[in-house]
Amino acid sequence: MSDAAFVWRGLKKVRMTGPLVLSVTNYVAANLNANGLLAVGASPVMTHQPEEIEDLVAISGAVVCNMGIPAGTLPEALYKAGACANTLSKPLVFDPVGAGASGYRNLVCERLLQAASPDVIRGNGSEIIALAGQSGATKGVDSTHGALEARSAAVGLAKQHSCVVCVSGETDLVTDGKREILIRNGHPMMPRITGLGCTATALVAAFAAVVEDTMEAVAGAMTVLAIAGEIAAKQAAGPASLQTGIIDLLYTMTNEEIDTCAHISG
Amino acid sequence: MSDAAFVWRGLKKVRMTGPLVLSVTNYVAANLNANGLLAVGASPVMTHQPEEIEDLVAISGAVVCNMGIPAGTLPEALYKAGACANTLSKPLVFDPVGAGASGYRNLVCERLLQAASPDVIRGNGSEIIALAGQSGATKGVDSTHGALEARSAAVGLAKQHSCVVCVSGETDLVTDGKREILIRNGHPMMPRITGLGCTATALVAAFAAVVEDTMEAVAGAMTVLAIAGEIAAKQAAGPASLQTGIIDLLYTMTNEEIDTCAHISG
Amino acid sequence: MSDAAFVWRGLKKVRMTGPLVLSVTNYVAANLNANGLLAVGASPVMTHQPEEIEDLVAISGAVVCNMGIPAGTLPEALYKAGACANTLSKPLVFDPVGAGASGYRNLVCERLLQAASPDVIRGNGSEIIALAGQSGATKGVDSTHGALEARSAAVGLAKQHSCVVCVSGETDLVTDGKREILIRNGHPMMPRITGLGCTATALVAAFAAVVEDTMEAVAGAMTVLAIAGEIAAKQAAGPASLQTGIIDLLYTMTNEEIDTCAHISG
Repeated sequence: MSDAAFVWRGLKKVRMTGPLVLSVTNYVAANLNANGLLAVGASPVMTHQPEEIEDLVAISGAVVCNMGIPAGTLPEALYKAGACANTLSKPLVFDPVGAGASGYRNLVCERLLQAASPDVIRGNGSEIIALAGQSGATKGVDSTHGALEARSAAVGLAKQHSCVVCVSGETDLVTDGKREILIRNGHPMMPRITGLGCTATALVAAFAAVVEDTMEAVAGAMTVLAIAGEIAAKQAAGPASLQTGIIDLLYTMTNEEIDTCAHISG
Repeated sequence: MSDAAFVWRGLKKVRMTGPLVLSVTNYVAANLNANGLLAVGASPVMTHQPEEIEDLVAISGAVVCNMGIPAGTLPEALYKAGACANTLSKPLVFDPVGAGASGYRNLVCERLLQAASPDVIRGNGSEIIALAGQSGATKGVDSTHGALEARSAAVGLAKQHSCVVCVSGETDLVTDGKREILIRNGHPMMPRITGLGCTATALVAAFAAVVEDTMEAVAGAMTVLAIAGEIAAKQAAGPASLQTGIIDLLYTMTNEEIDTCAHISG
Repeated sequence: MSDAAFVWRGLKKVRMTGPLVLSVTNYVAANLNANGLLAVGASPVMTHQPEEIEDLVAISGAVVCNMGIPAGTLPEALYKAGACANTLSKPLVFDPVGAGASGYRNLVCERLLQAASPDVIRGNGSEIIALAGQSGATKGVDSTHGALEARSAAVGLAKQHSCVVCVSGETDLVTDGKREILIRNGHPMMPRITGLGCTATALVAAFAAVVEDTMEAVAGAMTVLAIAGEIAAKQAAGPASLQTGIIDLLYTMTNEEIDTCAHISG
């Protein structure tokens, strides 16, 4: 699996088929998530209105449940979107934003995992450790743990929920509880862009909509984003121009750039 | 009408008078909408709180009802803003985002059009076709139809609601049911920017606030945005730098750029 | 106080300690606020869910109550966040966005100031005049008054609420009712960026989390933002590239840039 051919295959398929991704998500990251999906060739649709969830899941290729800011109708929309995705066999990706930061977020996580079985859970180290029920300091929505510190939590969660777990960080870790893929790409300035983790989740959903093997879908999306960050950082004066460069590169990325840059092992 | 002088006249008037535009809109596009309005010289104010709608309509020069994400208090705010705009004779622009994508959005459209008479309806091909009650596949909030495919739907809607209908696409179409203006500007990368259609709607409202003739207001705003996209695309590395360039150009656009680029017929 | 050494001291302390700032805020500005906080070295967390306010205030270094768009659970979340911040002795910064624009916003302001005692109030000239109960025309969320026109309103508010009041404008004014600091930095294009005032508020909170003297915290944050705008404007083609430049500069700003540019008196 040191061969990155599957990354390009996935990206090409997203571009050719343009899957619709439904996101129940937060307003801090919504705009960047949508632009990330459009740049990679997918189509975003977003709602937190429970009454339209069923119709929108039905026309979507994959579903994102992003805990984002769990207020108003959002929690109910999350539970319904998760259950509908399962019923209609659409890939479901769960992003436990800020898990561990408040008792209420922990409760929403618990209820979502009772209502639905995600195909993928993607979070940062602190969120994955909190979700696995391990004790660990959290700092709001930013991580205080590297991905590798969350390895045992990730493996445990993957086994418990029979899903793929992705922990993003300096090294991204992808595991289904048995196999493991490590992606050593990206740039230290990337965590200074708000919502970039949520955007990773959205891209994972786009790949999962069209790529059969879930491990390859997740690792493919994470690699594309990390390489975009790595290349964009070379010309970025700071986090805002880095964000611009990343979105532009999601749109233009070539097989050659992936081949040259990818550092995947597992 | 091949003469683009009315476009510059409209833009100049917006810059000189700085109309306040009230938007009831969605959080995916809200930031870009506001920045588009500010760049063109107008002032944005946004709410989805029904209790302040009347006060805000009263001080505004035009009102946008953007179906955006119809959750929480937003639908009620839409109906109230539409009705208030009519009562206080403020130009009302309706953007049926994602019409046809869910039964619930169709219901909100129906109720809004019962509660209020828009002066302008602006959408993409699929939305206009869905709003006109014609069958047609939709893909969430992105269009699967060009503007010209929606011509008969647009003419029908314009006659039915005695308003101007604008369908955006590779060619933008503006009709009041009798006259027609076609704008052949823009760039194929523009639909890869989320919320750019909603921003077109916001600009249309800014122009409608200060330009007497509604056809000219709509065509003027659409031409300015399309030309900004066309010029910005020459230096854009992808959709994010395209977005930056478009907002910058809304701020700096000259009469000469409009004269040189505009491809308007009708 | 013409010496700007305290500005650099504040910025350095924010970068070294990375305070968590909880914002109850609006979705128009949320993304820029979060990116501003991340660029300056702080961490953002946002919510409008009353049930998680207490947990999030407890782990935060400072709290922002931004009236933003007072709909849904946001007003309740504002009151609770304000009260919790007081109880837990966390610096509380209040941004009365659009005060005076609607009766409802005035009511929310009144209730918030009954529920909590802010350490800092930051707004534009029109908002501060409206909050002080003086008559004065307002234009939605944009100001029609310079900061110096709001001087007596600011002094009155500062005395009434025993807090620091900051009025942003061409000149930024900071007062605790007795002392006054004036910051003559910035660029006329800055008000063409939506949410930049809200971002100033967020930065003030980040500084207040780590700087003992509140006057210095507020003046430090406002100076850093104004200098970022001033430097970025030299290369900006319009308001969007100005925004990119400002965020990048918040990340890279040096002591030398502050020393060279700062125009502080008081």
